[in-house]
Amino acid sequence: MQKIISSASNEDLKQLARLVQNVRERRKSRQMVLEGIHLLEAALDVALVPTMVFVNEDAAQRSDVQALLARLPSASECIQVARGVFAKVTALSSAPEVLAICPRPEASKPQEDASRLLLEDIQDPGNLGTILRSAAAADVREVYLSKGCVDVFSPKVLRSGMGAHFALSIHEGADLAAELAAFTGRKLVTHLAGSTSLYGQDLSGPIALVLGNEGSGVSDALVSLSDVRVRIPMPGHAESLNVAMAATICLFERVRQLQC
Amino acid sequence: MQKIISSASNEDLKQLARLVQNVRERRKSRQMVLEGIHLLEAALDVALVPTMVFVNEDAAQRSDVQALLARLPSASECIQVARGVFAKVTALSSAPEVLAICPRPEASKPQEDASRLLLEDIQDPGNLGTILRSAAAADVREVYLSKGCVDVFSPKVLRSGMGAHFALSIHEGADLAAELAAFTGRKLVTHLAGSTSLYGQDLSGPIALVLGNEGSGVSDALVSLSDVRVRIPMPGHAESLNVAMAATICLFERVRQLQC
Repeated sequence: MQKIISSASNEDLKQLARLVQNVRERRKSRQMVLEGIHLLEAALDVALVPTMVFVNEDAAQRSDVQALLARLPSASECIQVARGVFAKVTALSSAPEVLAICPRPEASKPQEDASRLLLEDIQDPGNLGTILRSAAAADVREVYLSKGCVDVFSPKVLRSGMGAHFALSIHEGADLAAELAAFTGRKLVTHLAGSTSLYGQDLSGPIALVLGNEGSGVSDALVSLSDVRVRIPMPGHAESLNVAMAATICLFERVRQLQC
Repeated sequence: MQKIISSASNEDLKQLARLVQNVRERRKSRQMVLEGIHLLEAALDVALVPTMVFVNEDAAQRSDVQALLARLPSASECIQVARGVFAKVTALSSAPEVLAICPRPEASKPQEDASRLLLEDIQDPGNLGTILRSAAAADVREVYLSKGCVDVFSPKVLRSGMGAHFALSIHEGADLAAELAAFTGRKLVTHLAGSTSLYGQDLSGPIALVLGNEGSGVSDALVSLSDVRVRIPMPGHAESLNVAMAATICLFERVRQLQC
């Protein structure tokens, strides 16, 4: 780690900033930016190979950071960055120890009867990250995202997912209608006007659970391809739950059924 | 609504800005600031009386805003504000139609056997708002907050609660240990190291559910006062769920048991 960069006009740093800020740049190049040691660690745990790792010069002295850097594959270039430079690149209130450019993991075709989440046009990065975190915790590992979803490998979604991305198989830009039509298990959409309570459903076999956009919900096309519209009973006075809470409730009702 | 204010140095606007920005000012005066027509509507629905309502001059022409303003009690002073002034007062990316200064609702002593949430030192406004939204949807209306919680009537928590505050009875600055000791129903704390699965618990009677700080969890003092430490089973690979997801899962497991 000889290089120390202190100028934000450095070409490597400019590339990093472009990837942080520009969704098209990230998607076209099939890359993502990992912020902080926790995410880098989670990526290394699943054998991803970062192309470039930028380390804050202060953090480079810390033993936990050094231990993590020692785990980097030889193909990863490591660059030290002067204090204050990260603040110009990320939107975080406190600058992370490391920023890493890393190729996105590629999802392979799952087993036909693997349970799965289908996410249609989810817009809020925090919601999407939370949904991924719940899916990872509940062990529903196949996640399909429509083209209209926010970039699932954006820095914000990665932060909010807290490493869940790397426990999942994430299928970006999926044709949800085709996926749902081809799925042989039980197909459920969450729907405010659903006539059937979630709690009457058998979720113990292979399921595809469809969740829709924060404002407009699941599209009619996907609703018509599903077996059942489920409603989460709300005895209280709230207008609705947000999509991340709804996903969490459904995913953990499945956990309950599988355990009881 | 004769007054039109265009200067941010106006005394009423300065008071508004102080209440938005300063937690001590809000707590000492027992006031809160409602941002946007949805929150103001929810407050009026439960007969709260805003002391001052500031209306953006553009929004004042809209029929939905006029209909809402027509519902204001006569004790509420209404002030029109010139375009661009709200942007200096709030941190929102798009300025709201209205900002209202309103006394906080006072919680009365609940029925002895009413189920309740006890929240210890919750720090993240988004988490706290989400928990309140889940509690309102799940009809657990009594919510006790320790002194160490973020201000539950801060603009951020109010936004994220989306009106849930007004469907609940919120007890601020509570002595959680005393409340828990006095409660006669079943007392549960969520705990990562809990030995008992949530799904084995009978939640159909009166319960007190204790949730703790994002980093350190529930304190030993409260754990020792509880009947059972419950763990949410996580068959997958996540380290943990955040406190809002954990609360949502527990609250809706209660909904399920009450419905099935």
